[in-house]
Amino acid sequence: MAEIPNGPLVGLRVIDLTRVLSGPFCTMILGDLGADVVKIEPPKGDPVRGQGTMTDGHSGYFAGFNRNKRSVVLDLYSEAGRTVLRRLLADADVLVENFRPGTLDKLGLSAAALKDLNPRLIVASVNGYGSTGPHADRPAFDFIAQAMSGFMGVNGEADGPPMRAAPPISDLVAGIYAAVGILAAVIGRDGTGRGQTVEVAMVNGLLSLMAYIASEYFATDRVPPRTGNDHPLVYPYGLFRCSDGQIAVANSHDQILRRFLDTLDLGWVMSDPRYDSNPKRMAARNELRDLIDSRMAGKPRDHWLEVLNVAGVPCGVVQDLGQVAADPQIAAQQMVIETPWQDGPSLRVLGFPIKLGGTPCAIRHPVPRLGGNTAEVLAAAGFSAEEIAGLAASGSIATD
Amino acid sequence: MAEIPNGPLVGLRVIDLTRVLSGPFCTMILGDLGADVVKIEPPKGDPVRGQGTMTDGHSGYFAGFNRNKRSVVLDLYSEAGRTVLRRLLADADVLVENFRPGTLDKLGLSAAALKDLNPRLIVASVNGYGSTGPHADRPAFDFIAQAMSGFMGVNGEADGPPMRAAPPISDLVAGIYAAVGILAAVIGRDGTGRGQTVEVAMVNGLLSLMAYIASEYFATDRVPPRTGNDHPLVYPYGLFRCSDGQIAVANSHDQILRRFLDTLDLGWVMSDPRYDSNPKRMAARNELRDLIDSRMAGKPRDHWLEVLNVAGVPCGVVQDLGQVAADPQIAAQQMVIETPWQDGPSLRVLGFPIKLGGTPCAIRHPVPRLGGNTAEVLAAAGFSAEEIAGLAASGSIATD
Repeated sequence: MAEIPNGPLVGLRVIDLTRVLSGPFCTMILGDLGADVVKIEPPKGDPVRGQGTMTDGHSGYFAGFNRNKRSVVLDLYSEAGRTVLRRLLADADVLVENFRPGTLDKLGLSAAALKDLNPRLIVASVNGYGSTGPHADRPAFDFIAQAMSGFMGVNGEADGPPMRAAPPISDLVAGIYAAVGILAAVIGRDGTGRGQTVEVAMVNGLLSLMAYIASEYFATDRVPPRTGNDHPLVYPYGLFRCSDGQIAVANSHDQILRRFLDTLDLGWVMSDPRYDSNPKRMAARNELRDLIDSRMAGKPRDHWLEVLNVAGVPCGVVQDLGQVAADPQIAAQQMVIETPWQDGPSLRVLGFPIKLGGTPCAIRHPVPRLGGNTAEVLAAAGFSAEEIAGLAASGSIATD
Repeated sequence: MAEIPNGPLVGLRVIDLTRVLSGPFCTMILGDLGADVVKIEPPKGDPVRGQGTMTDGHSGYFAGFNRNKRSVVLDLYSEAGRTVLRRLLADADVLVENFRPGTLDKLGLSAAALKDLNPRLIVASVNGYGSTGPHADRPAFDFIAQAMSGFMGVNGEADGPPMRAAPPISDLVAGIYAAVGILAAVIGRDGTGRGQTVEVAMVNGLLSLMAYIASEYFATDRVPPRTGNDHPLVYPYGLFRCSDGQIAVANSHDQILRRFLDTLDLGWVMSDPRYDSNPKRMAARNELRDLIDSRMAGKPRDHWLEVLNVAGVPCGVVQDLGQVAADPQIAAQQMVIETPWQDGPSLRVLGFPIKLGGTPCAIRHPVPRLGGNTAEVLAAAGFSAEEIAGLAASGSIATD
């Protein structure tokens, strides 16, 4: 794949000790942008290699988080394996890890030791709660971070239980934030000549997304209620019934609401004394819902999507993943792509959400076979063929 | 606030044309990291200045998205206002906008014109669907992006409707991704000497978080069902009842499940022929839930959180925002902070999720008064006092 132009992060050397989700998502973003990501795996590999439905023995779940990386197997429980790691780190720009706080110290890679080894190294950690504070040592998991951050508490129906988001978004949001922090530290290093630590906690990342829900709490000290799919402050807004199913409509302010009602030939609603203010419309939401549903039920979703979007009303379908994969907009945006596997099949994965006009994201490295790049990475780091063979014979590395 | 050390992005000049949510979140992240963010506002200001509960006439919602920025009022509908903008852009590193695709062209700031003006400028756009494809011109809104991306379709109870997340996460995730793309483009510019475009669409950003839900769909072509707070593939997992309320427990694999059951004196479950495999436990989930609930009902949440966390079982409380704000871990992580307002009150806002050890995020600029920095920014860009007074008199700028 030599003909693909370099990404913007070409030359950035990332040593990736992460596994499972938050860290691998961070390093995949860096790899998609052209960084040289060397994924250090234990002899048994990242556990995700064995998770999810297999295609020809290959995990699509692993592919979705590990394209654009190279795999090196090191046994970090052996002194020889740790020595190899230190040699790779001496020449790297970034180390990323998502162990529980303290694990790096146990591997002999304390902050002080790393600074001695390579003062320009940026050391990034993704964890559950942060490395300081009373919960620093707690085991973390996406579901728990959703619960503890306040995120889950505001999701769900008003009369139902708090509801998690099904995707593991606390892992993923922390991974994206870690990428921001790492790149900022790379830029900052130009001025200082020194690396630094970067840390993102899953709970903190998700809490940072509470937006106006948090600012309203801070301003009023009132704990926000759950409101399901309805907007807490505006009506009509939400899901409405067409002849062949529902559409989502976001009448976020009066100007858009007027366009919506006009398109439905319900323009009179805005001047009817029963409905001529938002508080009145909130109070009459059941009546208004019936009125709107009965009008929309006369035509199918595609009709309403067409005329409402042309009128400037934000609206859409609640798409399932099959519909998303068939959506011409998603195709135009290349958001479902194929990635090859080193010596394996091509698998469908999600595309690149960051679109760069000059040096775009691209698949520059296939999903790596476990240890499929050990020999080449060690050779480039100055290990002789004899050293590599000796390390492989001792089990401290695996070359295939 | 001159005693605060510089952030890693010190010297990065960002001209910010964004309003409301996705773009302002992106530029706030850059500002938190030390970039010089100049928020260009129309004479009436970002509409968010008037939204949400006011404290002494100041919007906490606006504060939550606009600390660490300076405000310049330019009327971009006037030629003089556009001339000022071009002069600011000639010397900037980054332009960020979240208009609908095509609006920048109408302001005379097409990609070609911007390249002529400043070939090093990075031009970042956050929008709903992307600037190409059949839906490029559709109006976007968080709720609609949640629907169209497939995200909403997998959230909610198995027998309930698809459920949005209450926070506007498609805006926010797109904003964070845009920050990643901008910083990558800044780094790439060191090699090429040229800026480039960066674009992130809300639908694409949220779709990129579908993780194993997407990879399972790609591997099987089966549309994933909603599973509420239960894990689709593992049981026991979810919310369980203690004497004083529920806790969330994530028994993500057998080793953790064994610790969980042992802690409850239910270790026998794993070897009981009715429950000795995950498929059997999935089938018997109601029985197991009753068994676990009845055991946990004997003690309060704090007891179980303590013993389960010590045992290495990820667990926690579904906290509401009041509990989050009082959580000692959140306090230790400084995730609720105060920000001053230029000539106004201090307001509580969410803290910085990116923790840098060397050059940390900090409040370096208060939330700006509308146009509160117009005169100083224009003077630094070389406008004379007479020019500034003339522009203000014409209404093309506002200096206060």
